[in-house]
Amino acid sequence: MIGVGVIGYGYWGPNLVRNFSDIPNAELRWVCDLQTERLARLRSRYPAVQITEDIDDVLGDPRVDAVAIATPVSTHFEIAMRALRAGKSVFVEKPITSTAPEAQRLIEEADRHGLVLAVDHTFIHTGAVKKLREVIRKDLGEVYYYDSVRVNLGLFQHDVSVMWDLAVHDLAIMDFVIGARPRAVSATGMSHVAGSPENIAYLNLHFDSPLIAHVHVNWLAPVKIRRTLVGGSSKMVVYDDLEPSEKIKVYDRGITLDPMASRAGERKNQMRIGYRAGDMFAPQLDITEALGSELTEFVACVEAGTRPTADGEAGLRVVRILEAASRSLARDGALMELPQERVLA
Amino acid sequence: MIGVGVIGYGYWGPNLVRNFSDIPNAELRWVCDLQTERLARLRSRYPAVQITEDIDDVLGDPRVDAVAIATPVSTHFEIAMRALRAGKSVFVEKPITSTAPEAQRLIEEADRHGLVLAVDHTFIHTGAVKKLREVIRKDLGEVYYYDSVRVNLGLFQHDVSVMWDLAVHDLAIMDFVIGARPRAVSATGMSHVAGSPENIAYLNLHFDSPLIAHVHVNWLAPVKIRRTLVGGSSKMVVYDDLEPSEKIKVYDRGITLDPMASRAGERKNQMRIGYRAGDMFAPQLDITEALGSELTEFVACVEAGTRPTADGEAGLRVVRILEAASRSLARDGALMELPQERVLA
Amino acid sequence: MIGVGVIGYGYWGPNLVRNFSDIPNAELRWVCDLQTERLARLRSRYPAVQITEDIDDVLGDPRVDAVAIATPVSTHFEIAMRALRAGKSVFVEKPITSTAPEAQRLIEEADRHGLVLAVDHTFIHTGAVKKLREVIRKDLGEVYYYDSVRVNLGLFQHDVSVMWDLAVHDLAIMDFVIGARPRAVSATGMSHVAGSPENIAYLNLHFDSPLIAHVHVNWLAPVKIRRTLVGGSSKMVVYDDLEPSEKIKVYDRGITLDPMASRAGERKNQMRIGYRAGDMFAPQLDITEALGSELTEFVACVEAGTRPTADGEAGLRVVRILEAASRSLARDGALMELPQERVLA
Amino acid sequence: MIGVGVIGYGYWGPNLVRNFSDIPNAELRWVCDLQTERLARLRSRYPAVQITEDIDDVLGDPRVDAVAIATPVSTHFEIAMRALRAGKSVFVEKPITSTAPEAQRLIEEADRHGLVLAVDHTFIHTGAVKKLREVIRKDLGEVYYYDSVRVNLGLFQHDVSVMWDLAVHDLAIMDFVIGARPRAVSATGMSHVAGSPENIAYLNLHFDSPLIAHVHVNWLAPVKIRRTLVGGSSKMVVYDDLEPSEKIKVYDRGITLDPMASRAGERKNQMRIGYRAGDMFAPQLDITEALGSELTEFVACVEAGTRPTADGEAGLRVVRILEAASRSLARDGALMELPQERVLA
Repeated sequence: MIGVGVIGYGYWGPNLVRNFSDIPNAELRWVCDLQTERLARLRSRYPAVQITEDIDDVLGDPRVDAVAIATPVSTHFEIAMRALRAGKSVFVEKPITSTAPEAQRLIEEADRHGLVLAVDHTFIHTGAVKKLREVIRKDLGEVYYYDSVRVNLGLFQHDVSVMWDLAVHDLAIMDFVIGARPRAVSATGMSHVAGSPENIAYLNLHFDSPLIAHVHVNWLAPVKIRRTLVGGSSKMVVYDDLEPSEKIKVYDRGITLDPMASRAGERKNQMRIGYRAGDMFAPQLDITEALGSELTEFVACVEAGTRPTADGEAGLRVVRILEAASRSLARDGALMELPQERVLA
Repeated sequence: MIGVGVIGYGYWGPNLVRNFSDIPNAELRWVCDLQTERLARLRSRYPAVQITEDIDDVLGDPRVDAVAIATPVSTHFEIAMRALRAGKSVFVEKPITSTAPEAQRLIEEADRHGLVLAVDHTFIHTGAVKKLREVIRKDLGEVYYYDSVRVNLGLFQHDVSVMWDLAVHDLAIMDFVIGARPRAVSATGMSHVAGSPENIAYLNLHFDSPLIAHVHVNWLAPVKIRRTLVGGSSKMVVYDDLEPSEKIKVYDRGITLDPMASRAGERKNQMRIGYRAGDMFAPQLDITEALGSELTEFVACVEAGTRPTADGEAGLRVVRILEAASRSLARDGALMELPQERVLA
Repeated sequence: MIGVGVIGYGYWGPNLVRNFSDIPNAELRWVCDLQTERLARLRSRYPAVQITEDIDDVLGDPRVDAVAIATPVSTHFEIAMRALRAGKSVFVEKPITSTAPEAQRLIEEADRHGLVLAVDHTFIHTGAVKKLREVIRKDLGEVYYYDSVRVNLGLFQHDVSVMWDLAVHDLAIMDFVIGARPRAVSATGMSHVAGSPENIAYLNLHFDSPLIAHVHVNWLAPVKIRRTLVGGSSKMVVYDDLEPSEKIKVYDRGITLDPMASRAGERKNQMRIGYRAGDMFAPQLDITEALGSELTEFVACVEAGTRPTADGEAGLRVVRILEAASRSLARDGALMELPQERVLA
Repeated sequence: MIGVGVIGYGYWGPNLVRNFSDIPNAELRWVCDLQTERLARLRSRYPAVQITEDIDDVLGDPRVDAVAIATPVSTHFEIAMRALRAGKSVFVEKPITSTAPEAQRLIEEADRHGLVLAVDHTFIHTGAVKKLREVIRKDLGEVYYYDSVRVNLGLFQHDVSVMWDLAVHDLAIMDFVIGARPRAVSATGMSHVAGSPENIAYLNLHFDSPLIAHVHVNWLAPVKIRRTLVGGSSKMVVYDDLEPSEKIKVYDRGITLDPMASRAGERKNQMRIGYRAGDMFAPQLDITEALGSELTEFVACVEAGTRPTADGEAGLRVVRILEAASRSLARDGALMELPQERVLA
């Protein structure tokens, strides 16, 4: 039995509490939040859970093995570091930290103590994204492009830009589903409210392969779109998260190369690049709630000392891209090289 | 009665022929093409039209007042220049020329002779785009962003990239519907077939205003998308060219600014940026065939010596952006300033 | 403060409990169900609520003013009657009873005691259906047809047919949004599992006016459709419950009558019946949870002794149609007259 | 080489002319129409075709082997009969005749002379409907239901009701794709314009098997829907003719029968009827123009003396249903038995 504390009970915290409550080998012992009115409601729903405004109550409890952190991004690093130093494994909301060096230090601290460090990249635990990964790796052939749009009319965040709020999802998904790591990034975007972070942004990701990736995020769109197109040399796939059941569609489509009939005024023996259009296939998807699967995996990792799918490194890779994209955006879209990942001997 | 010759009878030429045939005050006198098998079919359909492989037959006929040019892009400049020098008004397919200096020279030549120079920016003559312009100018308030996606599984062009083939439409539409002119452009893209031009590209357009514009074009998408989102301070609009009848949807949506309730750990008196969601309205659209309207306007301009909606300047503005975007794409997305438009005294 | 008991804690009961808990002037005192494993979970979530397997505990509590009944349809009448006789107002799931005479007796019993009798026609409390009613009554002119489709791949009910499970929604909505009452009904349908009630059915409703109504319900459809078309002499409306936000679309479309150009072989001076197509308008909808609004109204009616929107008469009208439709279905679609409503002096 | 005459050059005639012109072993010799202004346009487009207002010119030409009849429905019988008696094979627009006895007489006349009699059931020659037939016969298992909706805002026909104008398509398709023949039909419908035929109708088709079929046609709908759902014991299929490419979707979905856990108050050992949801598959479709394939087949049948896919019998079967449905509609939806098909010894 793994003892768990939840730190932060705002927008996402109740989902953590509800899901931890349903995991047989987890015992939710504490919920910590600074706002007491939120905790009142919790008290009536989960009378067995202890409530506190003092994080030390949670970190000081020897029966707590792990904490889940759902506080504002700017506080992730400090709280996670305190938890790791108190010997607790950590599950932290996305993005893992505000800066790459912070994420790096959390990874090192977790490694030092043999603790689990997981980041909440929820989408990679959905049936749709797991299938997307499988399709990309098995069916697509060489991956040509990855194009993702995540726009809607949404509440502006006052502390982070639309990239750190929305593109983080696309980057986490892309990190999971394609094998390649980007070499450089550029971004453009704009804020339409004085003093507020960017509410629209476009990211271009460059790779060493002939892969091109692009992310469009927007808090100010009249319609909601959650669509990713991935094209490969053998097949193409559309992941539309708003489709009620057919979220993944695999198209047997691609390029064909035909010798072109010579035409007056044209070079002979040129190839005409055409296309072929074949069947479409929408596989049945696992519909288990992603957060439930994710927390179950986290608890299992804490029990067994194993590494979760979205570990600190995954969180770090995403933050590195967001940091570089933010620098690019501030410099009119200048291309920013991404640091090479450390290669472990 | 305006005598007309059509030069080039490949993919688009038959549409020109069919539409000119239906304009009462135009008389289609010549069709010129180098490929005789195309002309055979024409002969049986339009027995009154004269057929030739020699452009001089058309340009030498004093009863020809204007020519429409539907040949490969690389030949536009030379043919248009010959036509203007022969005293014929010119209607030329998009893009007007392969380079901005060529477009500039055509404009000057037409001006010198008092001839009409029109470029076939077909979409701006559709009911949908005319309505889009009206909505943007009357209802949207300050325009915040212009985002256009034009992707499908399409025949690769062997002589021009996807930007010159598809983005030209988006740039022509944007030039028509928004008042502002871009100050700079950057583009990224890729070719996935050796020796072939780019088949996927992303363009960012920068303005002096807080407007951000973006165009995504792709010949290698498994699904067809033709959608433009335009957001403003008062309303937002979606132009979806694939909708059978509701191509333009106007959303009464936007940002709201509310004083934010102070929360523990947050600065007081901050504004919460929320959003409002109101009615949606899809106006009835004029469904006249765009090319028919456009050629009717061209013929009327030739008769009256007036300027068409898409004149040489419009063609030039679009080519300038495409040229700069091509340079940017070749330099990893570096930002390219656009030349200031000449201000006529 | 109105004391409330919930009887039946299966599929729908938890929604009643959750919503009653959020109504300030209601106090949820009892939940009654025969299956104890369901109640365990309830106990931890709502520790203040008393739990029982014996309905008499609820009906015998003088602090209970009203009960909500969410048990199998076949038990509605008996439980509701016992509750009314115990002096409790009643809110009962749809359909109100299994037979029209039962519903009639409940109405009379409630009237006799001055108690509130409400039926849970949830949809009529949605923003979409309230707007549909408004549009039909204000904008449509004479109503020509009402066509409703409610199909999906759904769990078969073992005790009631698809008509009593799904068409009940359409009939309740239609009862609410159009002024007219049907004069007769016919139905066809089929069961595809031996010994099981019909899983597909089509209902035709006949009126004294030139209105025709039709309902298609199906538990065995591969796709989910929830769409109602209503056509009138002035406008037409589509209610698509699966649209995320634009559930109601009002079309300015209709018939036009033009004198027809005489043609060889046709009578002169005939009228050509054409159509006009105008704007479409999707009004912003109230997104309050329907069940919350409905229960709030019920509690207010119990407090004030007033009549709810969906009263016993509404429940009775729907059951009369379902009964007649069932008889018709058993007789190969023979037309069944509906009883005239009693006119109260 | 088969000599062909086209009789009737209104809405559909030009399509016949265009397609016959493209068939190598057909020679279009005559077009006959009573309205000369239509023929003027034809003359310039197809100068080799002879034009006449006198049908005897066509029927008297020994080089004419076959005629295609695209005149008003009420004239089909007389013109087709004259053509057959003149020794010409006949291709006639749908519905084949206004009455079943007329169709029967045409069949007999064609048989007597060894001539081909074909009816233009265009849709059955589309790639989508051919695939629909294949899926139904190979994959669906026992067919449970066939539900077709064909509605839009359309021009009212002044001579035939919406059933004879639109449902004829659904009946022709159903006749082609499912093996079973209906035993009886009922229909309800209404006219909303005085003196005009019905503009909305619902047809129920009864079979000897557990198959139920239903057709909804409407000229007065605000949106266009062309969707057929077919459910079987093994799979289900959706045919949506408005989908640009995925017109046929095959769903691996169906019923499951599980022993139901006994519950308090319920009979034990009952089966719970659930459902399973699996993959969806949209096969690539042949996109050849249906009318071209159909006329090519007709010409080949005339050459070889073979029977076309949609022969007189197919036309007769559809007209029998339409006739019976019309009688049912006039009698408030009374069930009408369909005549047994003659069994040829």
